[in-house]
Amino acid sequence: MEKIKRLSTRHERLGEASVLGRIEEIATRTGFRNSALRLGIGDDAALFKGTTGRDQILTCDWFLEGSHFLRDKHPPEAVGWKCLARAVSDVAAMGGLPRCFLLSLALPASHTGIWLEQFLVGLRRAAKRFGCELVGGDTTRRKDILINVTVVGEVRTGRAVLRVGARPGDVLFVSGRAGEAELGLRVLRRGKTGVNGRDPIFKKHLYPEPRLALGRWLAAKRLASAMMDLSDGLSSDLPRLCTASGVGARVEAAKIPAVRFPNSARGRHRDRLDLALHGGDDYELLFTVPRRKRKLVPRSFGGIPITPIGEITRALSLVLVDEAGLEQPLANRGWDPFRQKG
Amino acid sequence: MEKIKRLSTRHERLGEASVLGRIEEIATRTGFRNSALRLGIGDDAALFKGTTGRDQILTCDWFLEGSHFLRDKHPPEAVGWKCLARAVSDVAAMGGLPRCFLLSLALPASHTGIWLEQFLVGLRRAAKRFGCELVGGDTTRRKDILINVTVVGEVRTGRAVLRVGARPGDVLFVSGRAGEAELGLRVLRRGKTGVNGRDPIFKKHLYPEPRLALGRWLAAKRLASAMMDLSDGLSSDLPRLCTASGVGARVEAAKIPAVRFPNSARGRHRDRLDLALHGGDDYELLFTVPRRKRKLVPRSFGGIPITPIGEITRALSLVLVDEAGLEQPLANRGWDPFRQKG
Repeated sequence: MEKIKRLSTRHERLGEASVLGRIEEIATRTGFRNSALRLGIGDDAALFKGTTGRDQILTCDWFLEGSHFLRDKHPPEAVGWKCLARAVSDVAAMGGLPRCFLLSLALPASHTGIWLEQFLVGLRRAAKRFGCELVGGDTTRRKDILINVTVVGEVRTGRAVLRVGARPGDVLFVSGRAGEAELGLRVLRRGKTGVNGRDPIFKKHLYPEPRLALGRWLAAKRLASAMMDLSDGLSSDLPRLCTASGVGARVEAAKIPAVRFPNSARGRHRDRLDLALHGGDDYELLFTVPRRKRKLVPRSFGGIPITPIGEITRALSLVLVDEAGLEQPLANRGWDPFRQKG
Repeated sequence: MEKIKRLSTRHERLGEASVLGRIEEIATRTGFRNSALRLGIGDDAALFKGTTGRDQILTCDWFLEGSHFLRDKHPPEAVGWKCLARAVSDVAAMGGLPRCFLLSLALPASHTGIWLEQFLVGLRRAAKRFGCELVGGDTTRRKDILINVTVVGEVRTGRAVLRVGARPGDVLFVSGRAGEAELGLRVLRRGKTGVNGRDPIFKKHLYPEPRLALGRWLAAKRLASAMMDLSDGLSSDLPRLCTASGVGARVEAAKIPAVRFPNSARGRHRDRLDLALHGGDDYELLFTVPRRKRKLVPRSFGGIPITPIGEITRALSLVLVDEAGLEQPLANRGWDPFRQKG
């Protein structure tokens, strides 16, 4: 229950303090100190100063053993990377810049050694990559590994791109390729042991890259009328954007940039569309652009394809147009923990 | 994994959305809307604007079934109240004012009915009481009930009271009575069934009151040189304050305002001191005041006793002076999850 704080053994017996000491190293080893952070690790709470003319963005994400990762299959580095990447992706989806984060970590005593070290290696790499500094958190002991990450970001006042804002006629875009993370998860689940985190088939599943630069660019240029990140799958997330905006959408299956199967994982066309529509964890951006501005959206951004996949409609239904031009309802079959078994 | 958002069933099947809908009600039913909160529940993240001349305070706390509460013994209202009170207490301990919070909640499907309703009643009462608005969070399904609360607060720039700052000669004060929460927990544990949340013996354990007004007053008057909240027990928390400040302390056992046993729970004197030194979960304030200002500290504040219990020393040791005037080391026997069994 003690807050993440400076390591000390003078007045304290070993125990929570030694776990905290290891965690604190990542704050110092990330090698950057944001002057707006008045006080980081080592007190009841973190202190920071908001920048004039910016709104603060606040988001948190569960990352739980068994629900979101498997202790024996997911490399601890990937767990460290991904728990932060997921939360940072919500900041990207608003067009913001991440600033700092809190780490809540519950661990079995057996995992306070090598597992924790490797977890922190991945977390530190992610923190550096995303420019997001660890400033505090909470640790406790627990049979299961439980993680919760809170990220604070910033965006120019009034420039945040919300889920509300899509209008009929707007073009619907998606970044990257949908379903790559789900493909990696399926292959990983079939395996009997831990995975080689460097195999490219697992890259998107293990080390997702929040689309920070794209999100900020879309917000700064005022191109996106609505935006969110794809975390639970297109068929679950698109309804959320449409509900928030009070609109519907028409998606063309042939246009969805689906996963390219590597030789090791060939599948039928049907699988590709399934992965693209219902696969979660992609952390790509889903956004809408008014028709008159659509030419201003490039085909790729920083090497990531940006693809128009449909349009926003006044009719509230969600429609999928198949490759033969036939329309069908787009069924919501993405991730919903309260619908899952087990 | 979906963020806490507006309830909608138009595009979504029941499931996570129905849980989120119940949670959202507390945001609307709390009956206050902070104009600085640009966007609350219903998007990828929450947006808020920092106040000019204020630092932001950021803190988070685990509240886990089995570790911090017992599903079958703790009333759900108390779980809702306490998960927020604990995190708000960290803001109080810096002299700050809470503004908003994120709720991360993992629940079994069996607990999305009455248990969730009652949990939210307690959470809503706490949110109103502390002036702290729910602005977002994350929900998922889980066998165990897992809670993590992040609170954002504010404090006038430069006025936050830290753990660093205690100087030799400073007087050490504590608010309230130490050990009352632990006494309630012990009685509750002995019981065979759920407890009557209205029995006064459980009040401090089930419904702790963060010392917000006292913390703010001490910060505003620049009286406290260092401050923290008592969450793990005096014998665990005092070393943290001393380590941060690079000092030691001398505590007089006779001065510690120990719990007053009700008729239903008589105990020996030894128990009272044990409870006061090592009992956790009191959420009282522990603070130091320079000797020249000690007369400015009242004997009580808003009905809560404020008691000088010792002094800060240059020697780094922690010393307990017993009622006979004999000195002994103050052993750290408060709560440390990595030292507990099980």
